[in-house]
Amino acid sequence: MSPMEKVNLSEKLSEFTEHWSPRIVGELNGQHVKLVKLRGEFVWHHHEAEDELFLVLEGSLTIHLRDKSVHLEPGEFFIVSRGVEHKPVADSEAAVLLFEPASTLNTGQVRNELTVIQPERI
Amino acid sequence: MSPMEKVNLSEKLSEFTEHWSPRIVGELNGQHVKLVKLRGEFVWHHHEAEDELFLVLEGSLTIHLRDKSVHLEPGEFFIVSRGVEHKPVADSEAAVLLFEPASTLNTGQVRNELTVIQPERI
Repeated sequence: MSPMEKVNLSEKLSEFTEHWSPRIVGELNGQHVKLVKLRGEFVWHHHEAEDELFLVLEGSLTIHLRDKSVHLEPGEFFIVSRGVEHKPVADSEAAVLLFEPASTLNTGQVRNELTVIQPERI
Repeated sequence: MSPMEKVNLSEKLSEFTEHWSPRIVGELNGQHVKLVKLRGEFVWHHHEAEDELFLVLEGSLTIHLRDKSVHLEPGEFFIVSRGVEHKPVADSEAAVLLFEPASTLNTGQVRNELTVIQPERI
């Protein structure tokens, strides 16, 4: 990731295959732009102090909340407000752009084998 | 714009036609997600304290910097760092998603007839 270079989202997505492991592709104003590939069910979690934006690029994604579910197709985004429990589920592989503070951990308040402490910059 | 509702970018783009007049479609962590339609040349300007991300959704966009130009097609983004002079140019209509602090004015340090003091939320 070089500052002052453009980023092609498809090219960046072709550089990794793992699921649930966000890559940092941009940084601005203390926020990160990340790409992540999802398949299957993630864990219920929340972020104490960070709102989190999910923009679907490929595939589809359902974000389960405790009181409803939000289904997202490519070109649709949803903002999960801080403190709100959520569980992303992708029945088949989805590619998602995340926009969130640099401090955000993928599993929120949960620490388990899915937690990525230091996402890779690509 | 309702919190906790998903946003379909194409639907939002169909709600306005003006050029160079950003609409706010999301807000998180003190940042705005905006949509803007561009055609023609904008003014040279910079933002003193705000980095600005341009993600092209439709059409194409050239961001002129003083030392180079960056051409963006759909699915490509570029971050203009704070303090860097830039001039967006779109030969034909382009639709662009912006991520930037809520404090960002479209014309940066310039105030003219293109300045939008309070972008509409849609």
